[in-house]
Formats: sequence, C-alpha cells, structure tokens
Amino acid sequence: MQMEQVQACIIPTTDPHISEYTPDRWKTRAWISGFTGSAGIIVITNNKAGLWTDSRYFLQAEEQLKDSGIDLYKTGLPDTPVSNDWIASELSEGDCIGIEGAVYAAEEAKSLINYFTSKNLKVRADFAPYDLLWENRPAIPINPAFILPERFAGKSCRDKIEEVIAEAKKNEAEITILAALDTIAWLFNIRGNDVEYNPVCVSYAAVSESETVLFISPEKLTQEVSDYLQQEGVTVAGYEKITDYICQIPSNTSVLTTPSKINYQLYSLLSEKCTVKDIAVHPADSLKSIKNEVEIAGIRNAMKKDGVAMVKFLIDLEKALSNNETVTELNVETKLKTYRSGQADYFGESFKTIAGYGAHGAIVHYGATPESNAVIRPDGILLIDSGAQYFDGTTDITRTVSTGKVSDTIKRNFTNVLKGHIQIALAVFPEGTVGMQLDILSRQFLWKSGQNFLHGTGHGIGCFLNVHEGPQSIRMNYNPAPLKPGMITSNEPGLYLAGEYGIRIENLLLTINAKTTEFGNFYAFETLTLCPIDKRLIDCSLLSSEEIEWLNNYHQKVYTQLSPLLSDEERHWLKKKTEAIT
Amino acid sequence: MQMEQVQACIIPTTDPHISEYTPDRWKTRAWISGFTGSAGIIVITNNKAGLWTDSRYFLQAEEQLKDSGIDLYKTGLPDTPVSNDWIASELSEGDCIGIEGAVYAAEEAKSLINYFTSKNLKVRADFAPYDLLWENRPAIPINPAFILPERFAGKSCRDKIEEVIAEAKKNEAEITILAALDTIAWLFNIRGNDVEYNPVCVSYAAVSESETVLFISPEKLTQEVSDYLQQEGVTVAGYEKITDYICQIPSNTSVLTTPSKINYQLYSLLSEKCTVKDIAVHPADSLKSIKNEVEIAGIRNAMKKDGVAMVKFLIDLEKALSNNETVTELNVETKLKTYRSGQADYFGESFKTIAGYGAHGAIVHYGATPESNAVIRPDGILLIDSGAQYFDGTTDITRTVSTGKVSDTIKRNFTNVLKGHIQIALAVFPEGTVGMQLDILSRQFLWKSGQNFLHGTGHGIGCFLNVHEGPQSIRMNYNPAPLKPGMITSNEPGLYLAGEYGIRIENLLLTINAKTTEFGNFYAFETLTLCPIDKRLIDCSLLSSEEIEWLNNYHQKVYTQLSPLLSDEERHWLKKKTEAIT
Repeated sequence: MQMEQVQACIIPTTDPHISEYTPDRWKTRAWISGFTGSAGIIVITNNKAGLWTDSRYFLQAEEQLKDSGIDLYKTGLPDTPVSNDWIASELSEGDCIGIEGAVYAAEEAKSLINYFTSKNLKVRADFAPYDLLWENRPAIPINPAFILPERFAGKSCRDKIEEVIAEAKKNEAEITILAALDTIAWLFNIRGNDVEYNPVCVSYAAVSESETVLFISPEKLTQEVSDYLQQEGVTVAGYEKITDYICQIPSNTSVLTTPSKINYQLYSLLSEKCTVKDIAVHPADSLKSIKNEVEIAGIRNAMKKDGVAMVKFLIDLEKALSNNETVTELNVETKLKTYRSGQADYFGESFKTIAGYGAHGAIVHYGATPESNAVIRPDGILLIDSGAQYFDGTTDITRTVSTGKVSDTIKRNFTNVLKGHIQIALAVFPEGTVGMQLDILSRQFLWKSGQNFLHGTGHGIGCFLNVHEGPQSIRMNYNPAPLKPGMITSNEPGLYLAGEYGIRIENLLLTINAKTTEFGNFYAFETLTLCPIDKRLIDCSLLSSEEIEWLNNYHQKVYTQLSPLLSDEERHWLKKKTEAIT
Repeated sequence: MQMEQVQACIIPTTDPHISEYTPDRWKTRAWISGFTGSAGIIVITNNKAGLWTDSRYFLQAEEQLKDSGIDLYKTGLPDTPVSNDWIASELSEGDCIGIEGAVYAAEEAKSLINYFTSKNLKVRADFAPYDLLWENRPAIPINPAFILPERFAGKSCRDKIEEVIAEAKKNEAEITILAALDTIAWLFNIRGNDVEYNPVCVSYAAVSESETVLFISPEKLTQEVSDYLQQEGVTVAGYEKITDYICQIPSNTSVLTTPSKINYQLYSLLSEKCTVKDIAVHPADSLKSIKNEVEIAGIRNAMKKDGVAMVKFLIDLEKALSNNETVTELNVETKLKTYRSGQADYFGESFKTIAGYGAHGAIVHYGATPESNAVIRPDGILLIDSGAQYFDGTTDITRTVSTGKVSDTIKRNFTNVLKGHIQIALAVFPEGTVGMQLDILSRQFLWKSGQNFLHGTGHGIGCFLNVHEGPQSIRMNYNPAPLKPGMITSNEPGLYLAGEYGIRIENLLLTINAKTTEFGNFYAFETLTLCPIDKRLIDCSLLSSEEIEWLNNYHQKVYTQLSPLLSDEERHWLKKKTEAIT
C-alpha cells in the first residue's frame, strides 16, 4: 500500500464474474483474514484492519479473527459504522483508496467511487498486489467443461444465441458482453466443475451478429466440446483474451451489458472503447429464467427423484430415532447425499446441506462442522435444507420435522409458517406483478404475532445451474423483475428463535397461466417439490378450510407421484404421512 | 412557434407548484384545447396537434375535442404511441421542442430533456407564449390567506420551521426551497382559497437558519396575517421575488429541494447559482404526513361530524327511494353538501362528489353534470365518494349502497371488495413496510376471480389540507416511503365493470403502534371513518370469522360514536344498520 501510495484498501468477497460462490483462486478475503464466511469485506488502513460481516457470521468471525489484529464490525447493529463511512473518517482529504476493479461489480464500484469522490478522497481501481503477496495462490480452475445435451437443455445453443442477438437489437446494441458464469453455461449448453455446487466454467462471452466468442482456457475443452462449439458457430478464445476483444471493438459500436453482473475492470475498458448500454436485467438472464418445456419436464422428473431420496431419508431418520440410535447433523448430510446420489443423472449437491437441530436451526446459514455437530434427540425439531444437481434439474427443499416431543408453541409457530407457505402457493396475480407484492402473503400470520423472518420468501433457481438465480425474487425489498410463466421460484417462509429452534418450509414453484379475463392475464403457482410436510407439527385448528384443502391436495399429489417409485414399506409410510387432515 | 424556431411544443396540466388541482391561471391545456379533464397533455407540431389522456377521459375528450383539429391519443391502449416517442418520430434531427419550464416538475423536465437529447433533438424550457396569446388569461389568484389556529394545527409555525431547519442540516443543507402549496400552508399554519377543494395559497417559501421567507402577493395578507407572520419570525416578500432571492444566494451554499415538487425553471436557476441537494421526499413533507396529537384529535372529531352528515344523507336517500321520489346523482351531491355544511367548522368540499349510479359507478372519476345526471332507480347500486374540509380535518369516504334489487353477482363482488378492505384494516406490519407490500391484501380475493381495480388502494390525506398527499401510498407500484405511526391513509379497494356498475369502499386509516417484540416494532391501522357499510350487499357466507368480527366491531364503534349526535329516529336507523351479522 505504501509503495502504491494507497492509504486504505478494501477486499470484498466476489470474483471477476460477480459469483455468489467463488473458485478458491478469488478467495482473497479468506486468505488474508482467515475468515471463511460467505459474506463480508475486509478494510485495511495503514494502522487498522477491520472485517464487516452480518449476524449470520458474528460468532464464526470472532473465532476466526482471534489474534489476527483484524477488528470485527458487526453489520446491522445500531452502533456499527458503515464501512465506507468508517474509511472516510479514518482517512484525510486527498488520500487514496485501493480496490481491485476486477472483483467488483461495475455498479458497486461506481457507487463506491462516487461516494469517496464526494468526500474528497481518491479511488484507484487497479490495486491488486495479491498475486505478489499470496504464496501458492490457487490457479484459475481448468476443470473440463462438458456439454449439456439438448434432451436436458431443450433448446440449442445456436437458437439461444439468435434470441440473445434479437433482444440486444431491440435494445439498439450490436454486441453484448456476458460475465455471469451461469448465464454463459446456459447460453452455450455447457456445464463445468469450477465452482463448488454451481456446475459452471470460468469464462466470458461476447455475442454479436457477426460472431459469438466464448473466452475460456483451452485446457478446459475436450475435443468433443471444441467440436460441438464449432458446430454451433461459436468461436473459442483464451479466457484472458476478453481484454483484447474489447480493445478491438470499433469505437462507435454500442455494447449491451448489465453493471451488476460485469466487473468494473471490464466495464471501464468497455466504456473507454465504445458506447456502453446498461441494462438492469440482461435479456439472456430473462431468457434463462423462463424455463422451456423440456426443462420443465426435466425438473418435474428431478423432483420425483429428489422426493424419493427425501422419503427414504425421512424413514431412516424416524427409524433411527425410535431405535435410540445416535444420529448427528453430519449423519443427516451424509445420508441425504447417499440417497440422492443413488438417483439417475445425479451430479452433486446444489449447496451445502443445512441440518440444524434445535438451536442450530435458528442459525439461518448453519452448516454442521465436526466441532458443532449436534446429536439429534427425540425432543424438538430439526430443520433440513438441502438439494441436488441432476442433469434434468436443480432441487432445493427445506423440511422441518419433529424428532419427538414438541410443545404447543412450536406447533403454533410451525402452523403460522405453513399458513404463509400455503398462501403463497395459492396466490393468483395479474401479469406484471413483482415479488414484493406477494411477499406479505407468507408473512402476514407471523406479523400478527409480532414475528418475522429476515430472509426472502423466494429466490429464482436454475435448471442444472445455480441454486440462486435472478431476475425474479419474492422479498420484502423491491425488485422490479415481474414473475412470469415458466419461472421457477422458491417458497420458503421461516421463523428463527435464537437459542431455541428454527422453522422453514420450502418448496419450488412454477409460475403458470391461471386465466385471462377482461382485466388481463392472471398467473398462479404450481408447486413442483414432492415431499410430505410433517403433520405432527401442525395445529389444525389454526388452518382455514382453504389451507386444509391445499395441504390435503398437495399430500395427495405427493403420494400419487412418488408411490410408484417406492418399496411397499416406503409406500406404506408415505401413505400415512400424506393422509388427509380435517 | 415559428417566430421562436420551435418545431413542437408540449402543454401539460400542472402549475408552477406542481399542483394536482391548479388555479384557472394555469389551465393552459384546457384553454388551448377545450378539454377540461384532470389529466392529459397537448402536443402541437407545425401541422398536427394531439391530446394524450387516459381511459378515465376517453369519452369526455372525444366530445370536447370535436372539430378542434386536435387528435385524441388514448394513453394505455396497445396501439397508442407514447407522446415523447411520437414527437421524436414527427420531428427531424436538430429540431427544437418548446416547453414551459415553470409548469414542469424539475424531475420530469430533466428526464424529458434527456430523452429528446438522446434523439438528437433540442429542448427549450422557456417557451411560454401564452400570456401573449391567451386573451383575458386569469390572473394569479389573490384571495386572502388566513391563519389556522394552533388549536387545530397542534404545533406553532415557529416550531415547524425549527424542525425543518434541523432536518435540512441533517441533509447538510443550509437553505431549503419549498414550492408545494400544501407543504407551505402546513409549515406556516396558514390556509387560503386559491385552488378549488384545496385550502392553500399560491406562494413559495425559503427556509434557512438566518431567515424564513414566505413569497406571497401582499394583496393576500390581511393585517392580522401579516402581524402573525412577523410574530412567528417569518419575512414576507412578493410572490415573484423568489427569483431575486435565489439569485442572491451565495454560490457555495447548499440548497435542499425535491425535484418532483419544484418547477424546472426555479430548479435550473438554483442549479446555476448554488449547490442543489436533491431529496426524494422533502423532510417538510415527511413531517407534515405524521399527524400530531392535536391533528389526530381533530380528525377524529371531523369524522364524527362527517359520519353524522353521511347518516342523515343515507336516511334521506332511503326514504326518497322508498317513497318513489325522483332522486338524481346531482341531488346526492347537493344533499351531501347541505348536511356537511351544517356541521361545525365546515369549510367546503374536499373534492367534487362522485355519485355514480349503475354504469356511472364504473367510471372511476365520474362527476355528474346536468347532461349526464342519472335518475337513481330502486334497482342496483350507487357509488358515492365524497368528503369535506373542516378546520379540524379533511374527510374522504366512499360508500356503495343498494338502491333496491341487487343480484347475487353484485353481492359476491361487493363482498370480495369488502374482504380486501377488511384485510387492509386488519394488517399488522413491521417498521419500514411500504404500501406496495400491503397492497395485495386488498386485491387477493378479486385476483382469484380474475378481477382487479386499476387505481391505488390508498393515498395519504392532509389535515385541513389536500385530499391527496404524500409521501406514503398503498399501490401496486413501488413507492419507497414507509408507512409510519401518525400517517393517515385511505383504504379504498373497488371493482368496476364497464357499462354495469362500480363498487368502492373507502375509510381512512391512522397508522398506530401495534407491538414491539424481539423482531422489532410492528404497526397496525385504526379505522377513523365512521359510517355503516351496507349489509344488504354482503354475502356473509364468503366472510371469514375474522372478517365478520371486524365488521361487527366496526359497526359497534360507528354506533357508539355517532349515536349521541343523532336524533331518536336517526339513531334507530343506525342501530339497525350496525347490528351484528353472523
């Protein structure tokens, strides 16, 4: 920092592709601090260093920062300064802040630069001494890419490229640059192994009428994949060649890109070289979010497999508990993985399983470790959030189950969460509706009890792609992307009582056409996930007749779809678990 | 236009204060076109002229534009071009569009200028030949201002000014400029007669620590008002002197203003002379929206008076109909005005009464005219939306009443609207919740039937001020202003079946504290409006027990609060109308 005349530097959590999960190569924040949580930023000045992270990670950060000399700033607490304010207060007029533009979303870097400039501070966006300092820094991953056959993708790469070009044209752009790994994987019908849980390949892409280029390390391409790409009309160039490509774009060319999905370094280069057209939601992401018929058939099939795995696991768990066998949270993780990996076209988990017994269930992003691993006792409830990547679809399901005795309060709380879940599942809404409008349906019963949950009600999900994808969501926050037929979104209200337990019920929903009237088009949801909801936790007296009807119909569907895939014993168990309530 | 080398001009509907209702002086669009609707813009090019207005005014505009040479462009229909696109398509590169910056919100003018500049067109914001062309153009009104005593206002002008100065400081501004007439009336505790239905005075204001200036025509100030203002430490200057004031602001002064609430002419001048700080919601508007205890006591009292007037009117209507007397929509308007004007501290109506019988009820902004005036028959339903300005509060109430026979379909539709109304009234929500989150509560039952209403569920309302005020609202659209304790907001879901009938049920709600838990502060609504809801239109089988309980409690409250103010006969009627349903 002194050599570069920088008085403070900031190290965020993302990578050049603004990924939620990043390859080890870009885990700079974890390398420098030892803190491995999924969110947080490090700030270093000449005489201080701080980590800003949120309540999910307070305990973990305290532990991991011990003796590091890095202070912990707990984001969201009233006395915690915002990191940028803190930096401004620590520096003097004219001082310079260094950031690595390559690992900042352009949108974020621009707002950060605006802020510091307004405080008479300078920002250098090329401060990245990490290659020099980081011994044995992991390389950019070169795991092989593979083709996702059209029987899973439902649409050829060539057709998708045509659609993206047409959309770019509508936006008066000649070229569009993509950096988001899931968007690129979707567009080219390729998948990879570069990021844990996300079947993507580190790459960039440029799409124009004259040429479509995939920027990817040649080591990642087998002959088969190279041939396939050539056949689809795709030019392949080295990963780093994206810079050369941008430099040779003629100066009056207009280039479409999404500032929240491209890194600041590339964005700045584009802005220098040509006319950048910003678009809040990239048309490729809109296209990706609307699943085609093959993808929908695929996810329906994946749901059956996932439901079978869940049923087998739940039966095991019940048996083990009733036999007084020792079952731990890590056992749950292993068992689930075993049952899922036995299913056809299984690829891997879609995220780290959250198996939180008792108080661990109240830690929203809990992941059991050998140190934390709790034994599940026949008392209270267990929250299990898990999912898989199958070639025909990505799953994400949460069930909260009774492990023995449960209090009336637990039942009341569970039922209020369930009522919210059902009201979302039953929603009908006009074309143009955004998630923020629906969100209250899942929270209204909790709010009346002075309760809430602080995560979203729903996120988009990919098809054999990332478990979190945009553009749509169902949240308390505003997101202008409307819910459209063909989108898949989670429905996962919850309730977390610190030190006691956590409740969450999550199914995936497909947006479908409901009806067209003089008032326009109306949409509704079809629940895709197939797994019983634990009736032992329901206080039926709190459910309306409409809600009881939904639950009984849902359970009927679960039984009908899964029972042909089960053994007699399993079927018998499922029959009982899906019997109608009154 | 040719003299000024302008190839197109645009004439909008508002005034230099960005008012919803404008003094005649600024009804330029109505003067030039003959079209008197409350919304619409005129575009004139060298060889064409067009009016853009929305579905509320299609019929009226067709009528009023007949033989004017002005074409009607129906906003919102799929084939109607957006006016700015149309202008761009009619003009050639380098052409110039003239607008009168003084009657454009700065925000709107800036976005318009951006748009046309991107199309290689020029914009002149000083095109205003109307004084020259408009014979007998009405003068700027000089009706006398008057003081709103503190027993109604609840807080002195001096205290409000202190609060505004403190808020401006928080935003690092030394001066703040106000142009919104209701904000100025609120701040100085003055009222006036310059705008129909809105008790405001044409004026500007500048507030700073060293001086608070009210820019207002001296003719409007009686000695009493002048003395009062002097006593409160307010400097008075002529209405037009705002320009001189801005010109003498030292150049490095920072001035707070709200671009959606100040006209472009003043905003541009400010931007030239000093550092403008934009704020989306002006702190004065936030302060105004949160009613103090005296204002809340006032509105509660106003509601009793308004309820009494409504009850007397409804009794009259029922009697007249059962006696086969001829009752027209205009009779309704007159009768309501008569009963209201008999109440203490009555000032006037808060907007033109909407009395829509049958198909007229489906016209959302219907106002009966001698030509349209329908006779109310003992068949179907009548929608009555009306309100008053009392010194102690502003009212706005809609009731839909049976005038005789009603079909089961009407009952079902009315009950679905009522269910939505009740769900809003029963809402509990955490601090920070915005109207868009609550809106679905009022629409969910209609949406399930493939129905909707295309206006907001709720708007803010002033205290003896404008019937529509911000910043909060409950709408399908995003508005970032959260609902806060002390705000008054309408709750008015409806349903409109073109050519058949309209339904709307409107009460005013006060946001109140509900509870504070480990999850934070939760708010709820208290219904302020006191008037029975027509039970003859309810299909009780569609109401949940919670909804029935709300209705019975509400009716009980209406009876308890109004009965002491009624005659025996009226009380007897109200008793029947408010008896519990099961």
